[in-house]
Amino acid sequence: MAEQSFQLYDTTLRDGTQQEGLVLTVEDKLAVARRLDALGVGFIEGGWPGAVPKDTEFFRRARGELDLKNAVLAAFGATRRPGIPVSVDAQVRALLDAETPVVTLVAKSHTGHVQHALRTTLAENLAMIGSTVRHLVHAGRRVFLDAEHYFDGYHVNREYALAVVRTAAEAGAETVVLCDTNGGSLPDEVRAVVADTIAMTGAPIGIHCHDDTGCAVANTMAAVDAGAVHAQGTAHGYGERCGNANLFTVIANLVLKRGREVVPLERLRDLSRTGRAITELTGVRSDPAAPYTGLSAFTHKAGLHASALRVDPDLYQHTDPARVGNRMRTLVSDMGGRSSIELKARELGYDVAAGSEEVARAAARVKELENRGYSFESADASFVLLLREELAGGPGAPPFEVDSWAVGVSRRRDGEVRTEASVRLRVDGESVTATGHGNGPVNALDTALHSALDPYFPALTRLELVDYQVRVLNGQVGSGAAARVLISYRDGEQRWGTVGVDENTVTASWAALLDAVHYVLLDGPAEAHGSPSLAAAATAG
Amino acid sequence: MAEQSFQLYDTTLRDGTQQEGLVLTVEDKLAVARRLDALGVGFIEGGWPGAVPKDTEFFRRARGELDLKNAVLAAFGATRRPGIPVSVDAQVRALLDAETPVVTLVAKSHTGHVQHALRTTLAENLAMIGSTVRHLVHAGRRVFLDAEHYFDGYHVNREYALAVVRTAAEAGAETVVLCDTNGGSLPDEVRAVVADTIAMTGAPIGIHCHDDTGCAVANTMAAVDAGAVHAQGTAHGYGERCGNANLFTVIANLVLKRGREVVPLERLRDLSRTGRAITELTGVRSDPAAPYTGLSAFTHKAGLHASALRVDPDLYQHTDPARVGNRMRTLVSDMGGRSSIELKARELGYDVAAGSEEVARAAARVKELENRGYSFESADASFVLLLREELAGGPGAPPFEVDSWAVGVSRRRDGEVRTEASVRLRVDGESVTATGHGNGPVNALDTALHSALDPYFPALTRLELVDYQVRVLNGQVGSGAAARVLISYRDGEQRWGTVGVDENTVTASWAALLDAVHYVLLDGPAEAHGSPSLAAAATAG
Repeated sequence: MAEQSFQLYDTTLRDGTQQEGLVLTVEDKLAVARRLDALGVGFIEGGWPGAVPKDTEFFRRARGELDLKNAVLAAFGATRRPGIPVSVDAQVRALLDAETPVVTLVAKSHTGHVQHALRTTLAENLAMIGSTVRHLVHAGRRVFLDAEHYFDGYHVNREYALAVVRTAAEAGAETVVLCDTNGGSLPDEVRAVVADTIAMTGAPIGIHCHDDTGCAVANTMAAVDAGAVHAQGTAHGYGERCGNANLFTVIANLVLKRGREVVPLERLRDLSRTGRAITELTGVRSDPAAPYTGLSAFTHKAGLHASALRVDPDLYQHTDPARVGNRMRTLVSDMGGRSSIELKARELGYDVAAGSEEVARAAARVKELENRGYSFESADASFVLLLREELAGGPGAPPFEVDSWAVGVSRRRDGEVRTEASVRLRVDGESVTATGHGNGPVNALDTALHSALDPYFPALTRLELVDYQVRVLNGQVGSGAAARVLISYRDGEQRWGTVGVDENTVTASWAALLDAVHYVLLDGPAEAHGSPSLAAAATAG
Repeated sequence: MAEQSFQLYDTTLRDGTQQEGLVLTVEDKLAVARRLDALGVGFIEGGWPGAVPKDTEFFRRARGELDLKNAVLAAFGATRRPGIPVSVDAQVRALLDAETPVVTLVAKSHTGHVQHALRTTLAENLAMIGSTVRHLVHAGRRVFLDAEHYFDGYHVNREYALAVVRTAAEAGAETVVLCDTNGGSLPDEVRAVVADTIAMTGAPIGIHCHDDTGCAVANTMAAVDAGAVHAQGTAHGYGERCGNANLFTVIANLVLKRGREVVPLERLRDLSRTGRAITELTGVRSDPAAPYTGLSAFTHKAGLHASALRVDPDLYQHTDPARVGNRMRTLVSDMGGRSSIELKARELGYDVAAGSEEVARAAARVKELENRGYSFESADASFVLLLREELAGGPGAPPFEVDSWAVGVSRRRDGEVRTEASVRLRVDGESVTATGHGNGPVNALDTALHSALDPYFPALTRLELVDYQVRVLNGQVGSGAAARVLISYRDGEQRWGTVGVDENTVTASWAALLDAVHYVLLDGPAEAHGSPSLAAAATAG
């Protein structure tokens, strides 16, 4: 049964970015929002407009560029400052200027925080909550109130904590979210406090947990069991200190363990893929042991289990991994790789037989390349080239050959920096040389490559190199370690990526640049080559 | 109050090694056991003698080499095979040969597993449990019984699951451990099943959980709340699939949240250090966001929090990090503002006044640099240089100047790739040139830079460049976008990082390379420059 009324609220873009090492550009934030929307999350908190310039910019761009199908955006901010009318509070005005359907207000509900952090009176804090909520509701916003430090506050002064909930609800807040801000609670306490708060106030209650006792997910489940109708969390549990509740785990637990379809079953199958895509966007390694979505989540190593697994997998797994888009792996004999390659090949329009030799060959090749440091999760174009090679007997002769290339960067004494590259290619037997400048060796090589090829292959002019990342693999730079280069392209409406691995970072980059050109010439322009499924599948990864 | 009677049981060396990527030598296992013993764990399960040769060897060497102060060793194994007398079962004999005070027997308690995996009758399974327990008790062992798949089994056939517990207890098992082997349970179910099992059997009950719903710790706490007197877990939650219950988190929760001193308070202060030591031994990266012990567990980034942290740290942390041997850290970021800078400056040993002008200046500078793409969260050395500049009136003249540099990468027709850099510096007024080769432009420039400077500044020879990352910021490469380069260094025992931002990736890298050199020359060798707090704080990030 789909549960439309339950509020799944993601705060990856706001509270999640408090995680150490997690820094998102506006572009990244838009891309994460699209992924969460596609998964079926109902509310996406985009940031704090007015307080964080990047977040103001996010909401501005979201209005034009973010075409959400399931979710609505929420702007996060605080109640008005003490002692001023809400109508003159610049921060509150910035919340309205974000033009989101939802505004989520954070408010103090712990008397100690009101007095020592906010430095105002308990009465004024309630007045701030009431007037700010009414002001926003009057302006047409749906308002959620995050009652900060609620659980600690409840233990210090229950009456005041309840008064905060009542005040917000009476002023028109749609949901009052009880926050375990310091993350110190355990499930039995959360359950009791949520139950009491619902009983005493009758307000629709939400829950926001942190993982400082390792119980963020359990606390969230306990709150929902006690009647909460709104759960907040973040992708992979990103967040400050020990992180927030992992929204992916909460979603899977609610659907699979409680039978509450907070996202439809068919979207739940995108859970693992969504997790991988967001990991690529944030650049923050997610835990391979993460429940449901982790690479190891359904991976078996035990000899004890291995034989029984063959008899009946259900004896040794708590749910079918396919339900969350993950798969069972056994570390003794990894049969898993083949089926995903089969699946991907069919997605790409190849008619492959189950267990065929070519699929086995492609799987072995992928495994071998991954051992050398390749990663195909966001390098879909390189993956398509590999599949074509194995499944279709070679990628077709590339319509040009590379003779040599060179690139140099120099800084003169006066501070001027010059970057220049040259390439020598052979196109249709004819020698072609070209040079290019750029903001670094990769960009200069890319410019030179296009300068040589674009006159022959106009399809290449569409390509825009939008991002590249270099990662040094396994140990120390300069001592035989490999570098992995991931390059992202915009190709008309589509986005896809390539990968290159080499000891030398520039050689690795060159390989990724060439893959992109090959991909466009062999597969890219769907209208010219009649393989729309290929191009579409490649960009969906 | 110290609780001597509660059984803390670690299975890192057995169930923990089922974790993907975790492989321990006998030497490693001995070292891990010593750490766990020093922490105050009561029982250390060393492995499965007879079944795993390495484990047989572990127990043999443990007898001579492992001088445990608090813990006793447990050997893990199975009940006798169906249809044979226990006295002739080779695997059971190997358990006795391990000569441990404790033997932990795994037994089936799920009727489906008895019939389909073990392929025997329900009655014979009970007979196997009874005879094996009696045999071991008669031989002078303390016996724990791990009732595998207990929670799933209880739901399928409660009477049989309870019969397993009764049979083991009546045969002399000291504790019967209820295992959520597939990890699919939630805390309310665990609590109810444990309570019912205790009520129906009167046996001393233990708990063994896995994290497949993200609730392993909460499930363990729920079982203890319901009366379990024995908790199993692993260091860092290592284990198959999503891992086991994190024993460190369980210990800290029991002591700090339940007031049950399952280890003495003074040993709890070793928790984080024990975690780091075990991470070094396993080589498996532990989660920086792990509760209590993680590097980020008490790390704050939010500006909202940072200002209140100054007033009273207890407002924003659920426990004093010193109690688990961890410490509070603040990160500098675009959410931080002045309060984070003040906090960070004090961490670094600067005596800055709250709201002082220099702090405001540093905050403005950080904000401006972050708008341009800088990120200081993992570039602590660059941040220290910036703070020195703003707070201490300039970083001191760097002891050398840069005249020019150049780097080139070329690929010849035969495929050979050469990377060569040259630098021209001025040291003490003297012109110095050097060249360097490498696996890419950054590595070659680094080699050339050190080749020029190391003879003058021997402290620089310690520096190892261990990782670098390049990220293109805001949009399209080559169209005025900036590149951010983060470089990580190993500097003796310490690790720290620098950042550079520029349109040109190589120029950005050069800036980060130079920051590292300046950092070492100005701050790095604490003994030479008399600023130990600076160096220590900077490297802790």
